Amino acid sequence: MAAVKTMDDLFLHLLKDMYHAEKQVLKALPRMAKNTESPELKKAFETHLKETEGQVQRLEKVFDLMGKKAQGKPCAAMEGLVEEGKEAIDEIEDAEVLDAALLAGAQAVEHYEISRYGTLIAWAKQIGLNDAVKLLDQNLQEEKNADKLLNDLALGAVNRQAA
Amino acid sequence: MAAVKTMDDLFLHLLKDMYHAEKQVLKALPRMAKNTESPELKKAFETHLKETEGQVQRLEKVFDLMGKKAQGKPCAAMEGLVEEGKEAIDEIEDAEVLDAALLAGAQAVEHYEISRYGTLIAWAKQIGLNDAVKLLDQNLQEEKNADKLLNDLALGAVNRQAA
Repeated sequence: MAAVKTMDDLFLHLLKDMYHAEKQVLKALPRMAKNTESPELKKAFETHLKETEGQVQRLEKVFDLMGKKAQGKPCAAMEGLVEEGKEAIDEIEDAEVLDAALLAGAQAVEHYEISRYGTLIAWAKQIGLNDAVKLLDQNLQEEKNADKLLNDLALGAVNRQAA
Repeated sequence: MAAVKTMDDLFLHLLKDMYHAEKQVLKALPRMAKNTESPELKKAFETHLKETEGQVQRLEKVFDLMGKKAQGKPCAAMEGLVEEGKEAIDEIEDAEVLDAALLAGAQAVEHYEISRYGTLIAWAKQIGLNDAVKLLDQNLQEEKNADKLLNDLALGAVNRQAA
């Protein structure tokens, strides 16, 4: 954060953070899809992989709008979440328990992204980068939909268990 | 995650994670309150500090319900968020930019916690730990309110800037 002096710098800092985050999601989702035995969860991960590809392209357009080269910056929070997903895959043997862990991990990632896109949109308005607002809002809506879908799957698991 | 074989294990794993997370929040909030020049933001951080003390006690009751000793487990995602807040305080000189960074960091923490409490509540239902559901839901509602308050402050900053 050494180079952050203005709101423009702060926006760019978080944009790089999210660009790196989404690229980590691109790598994590195929691994998650491969390791679930639930067809619904597999489909949810695969659908969100396609969405994430589009989100990365929108972020590249936002870099363009700022006249900057698209560049990621490692983010410890997201790396921690991705690492936890890898550990779950390596160490949990029971398929139902692993699905629950993968689903919860994916929801934590979605919530992180929902928070960050909300912030980026507020800051884009603040610095007058209006063309970025629509692009970032498209990403935000997709993340919210993904979280809702995952939530429905999680509640479905709870209800099956209770039945 | 080596010891996670059942949903009970998975629930306990995440409970330890959140217990550690809330204790980190207890340490971070006074530092954040001290370093903002905004009276509204300072008050929001101080109010949430009091709430967080109650949340830690509720988590201890949930450990009790499981017949386990309350124990934290470091969580890389939360440590990353807290570390980023420290960096912002050390390195951002402009008060308005620092406030924006602190506010955004606090919202990322709230969203992480909202996601995790939602998961803990679903899992508590699934494993039949019904007395835990109410306690965890109280924490969840407080986190949602805190995020809403922070969001209002963030939008206020954007609107002042635009005016």
